[in-house]
This record gives sequence, structure tokens and C-alpha cells, in this order.
Amino acid sequence: MARIKFQQSLDDLKERLLVMAGMAEQAIQRAIEAYSTRDLSICELVFRSEPAINKLEREIDQMALDLLAMEQPMAIDLRFILSVIHINADLERVGDQAVNIAVRVREMGAFANIDLPIDIPKMALLASAMVRKALQAFIEADADLAQSVLKLDDQVDELNDAAFYSLSSLIKERPELTPQSLNALIISRNLERVGDHATNIAEDVIFWVRGADVRHNSKGL
Amino acid sequence: MARIKFQQSLDDLKERLLVMAGMAEQAIQRAIEAYSTRDLSICELVFRSEPAINKLEREIDQMALDLLAMEQPMAIDLRFILSVIHINADLERVGDQAVNIAVRVREMGAFANIDLPIDIPKMALLASAMVRKALQAFIEADADLAQSVLKLDDQVDELNDAAFYSLSSLIKERPELTPQSLNALIISRNLERVGDHATNIAEDVIFWVRGADVRHNSKGL
Repeated sequence: MARIKFQQSLDDLKERLLVMAGMAEQAIQRAIEAYSTRDLSICELVFRSEPAINKLEREIDQMALDLLAMEQPMAIDLRFILSVIHINADLERVGDQAVNIAVRVREMGAFANIDLPIDIPKMALLASAMVRKALQAFIEADADLAQSVLKLDDQVDELNDAAFYSLSSLIKERPELTPQSLNALIISRNLERVGDHATNIAEDVIFWVRGADVRHNSKGL
Repeated sequence: MARIKFQQSLDDLKERLLVMAGMAEQAIQRAIEAYSTRDLSICELVFRSEPAINKLEREIDQMALDLLAMEQPMAIDLRFILSVIHINADLERVGDQAVNIAVRVREMGAFANIDLPIDIPKMALLASAMVRKALQAFIEADADLAQSVLKLDDQVDELNDAAFYSLSSLIKERPELTPQSLNALIISRNLERVGDHATNIAEDVIFWVRGADVRHNSKGL
């Protein structure tokens, strides 16, 4: 009976983490929509979502603590709960990146909306897909899917590196475009960090599913 | 008897986390020394320390898991172990920031070593002091000291914002200095993130020492 209740609580924990992931993903989408449309009211939505994301992070951590206190969990459950704690922290930081992007979009609002040699929406789609796939891998306990997330990260890193060079060149040629270019450069780095968080999540899934043996081959945890 | 062994294991865990903190801090110091001296052999030291930091992160997580599996920990111990798990992840990311800085220093090696309107070593000292104080607060279970770390973060953020504006101006006036300026700008942001990790650690200490009631007033966990 206790075991059934424990299993139910694990499921509740997973469900809350999915809500957290949805909120973080939505925050990124909104920040990029604000970038694409230069609609500052959408930035406001991003800022307002941050306290809710932080609150949910604390709730999930508390649920994890309660589960750890409830009964002596088995090793596989411990690994699952540890993964949830890590993934939760990463999702909260994805939300932070959305806020950082929205801050930059607001800064850019003071300058002409020019075409920049960087495809921010494409980077954002990739980074968001990474987060979504990492969470899907988590729900389905699919280590192979998690592994595919690690490959996507290379693409995001390449786009970010390319943006660095193309924006540097633009600034040198047209210094008057420095403010827009620098803000776009920082947004590009923010998205690269979203990809890093998705990578962390994917590595946690691999650790949870495959156990401790894989961790020595995987960067970070 | 089991309780004494458990307490001993908690102490071991704390001691390993301090080793982890020392490694992360040393990586930052070396990266900044590389920046100040433009000695690329120091960058190599930073790159070589990364696998060791990652390995220790995994060891500490495993110790935390083993402790959670050992016996039914009390609530205060659970909060402690959860804090260790969080702090451990933050320290690993401080190490990542050191690597990011070293990559930038290596890039800057191709360009003239000019005076830039940004005091990177000062920012680094502040950010390192934050990490050290946050860990000291953790060792001494001192929530007030942890609280003081949060204030230091405002200083780091201000320096980072000031660097953004002064480097933007420089680039506009002297576009030929774009590569150095952009790399310095990114190093500044890396240091700001070290400050953010120290802030996360300080918030964990406050949570651990004061318990769940404070978490609703504190950003993140």
C-alpha cells in the first residue's frame, strides 16, 4: 500500500515537472515572439511568468524532499528523484534565459529594427526542440532520444559561433549598428545556454535510465 | 551507531564539496591570470582541470545518493543533502565558466593586447569572493553571511552593465578594436554568471539553515 502511494507521488512529481517544462518553454517562445515582432507587451508577459516559474521550482523541490522522507526509496527511485531535482533547476534557468532575452529585446526597442546576419528564430526553434525532446526522453525513459539531444547541441553551438563572427564583421563595417548587433549577440548566447540546459537534462535522463555506468562517458552529470 | 556513521558520511560529503569548490575557484583564478598575462599555457591548465571537476561532480552526486539510500534521513539532513546536490551542480558550472573564459583569452591571443575600458580582474575578484563567501556560509551554516553574498551580486551586475556600455562605445568609436572588445564583453558576462552561481549557492545555504519558510522570499531556491 505504501508502495502504491509512493508510486503515485512519483507520478505526481513527474507531472509537475512537465508543467514546469511547459512554462519554461512558453517563456522562451514568448521572448522570441517579442524579438520577432518587437512587441514590448510580450516582454512583460515573460517578466510576469518568472515568479510563477520560481514558485513551481520550489514546490517541486519540496515534493522531492517529501518523497525522500516518505520511505526508503529504491536505488532506481533515488536516481529518478535526483534527476528531477537537477532537471527542475535546469528548467528554472531556461526561464531565466527567457527573461534575459526579453530584457535585450526591450533594449533593442530604442533602436531601428534592422536586418541582422543572424537567424534568432531558427536558433530558438532548435533550442526549444532540444528542451522538448529532452523532456520527452524523460517521460518515456528513452535514453536514445536523450542521446539525440546531445547532437542537436552541436548545431546550436555552430549557429552561435557563426553569429559571433558575422555580427563582429557587421560591427566593424557599420559601427552605428553596434547596439542592435551586441544585443542580438547576447540573445544568441542566451539561446546557446538554453541548449546547454537541454543537454544537462538529456544527460540526467541517460543517467537515470542507464544507471551510474554511463556517467563516466558523459560530460557533466 | 548507524547515526554516527551517517553523520561521518555527511561530513565526508561536505569535505568533498569543499574540494570541488576549491577546484572551481582555482579554475577561475587561472583563467583570469591567463587573461591578465596573455599566457596561453595557463589556458591549457584550465582546459585540463575540466574533466577532473566533472568527475568530482559525479562522485559527490553518488555520495549524496548513497547517503539517501543508507537510512531514512531526518528532514534537516534531507535539506542538507538537497543543498549539496544543488551546490555541486553550481560549482561544476563555475568550472564551465572558467573554461569559457579561457577559450576567449585564447581567441584574444590573435589580436593586439590593448587597454580596454573594463576591469576584468576586479570583476573576477568580486565573483570569486562571492563563491568563497557562499561556501564559507555553507561550512559555518551562517545564513547572514549567505545573505551578504546576495548584495555582492548587485555589484557584479553593475560592473557587467557598465562594461556593456563602455565597450559598446569603444566599438563605435574604434571598430578595429571589435574582436578584443567583444571577447572582453563575453568574459564579463561569464563572470556575471559566476556571481549568479554564487548567489544560487547562498540561497541554498539560507534554505538549508533557515528551512522552508524563507524560500518564498528568496529568488530561485
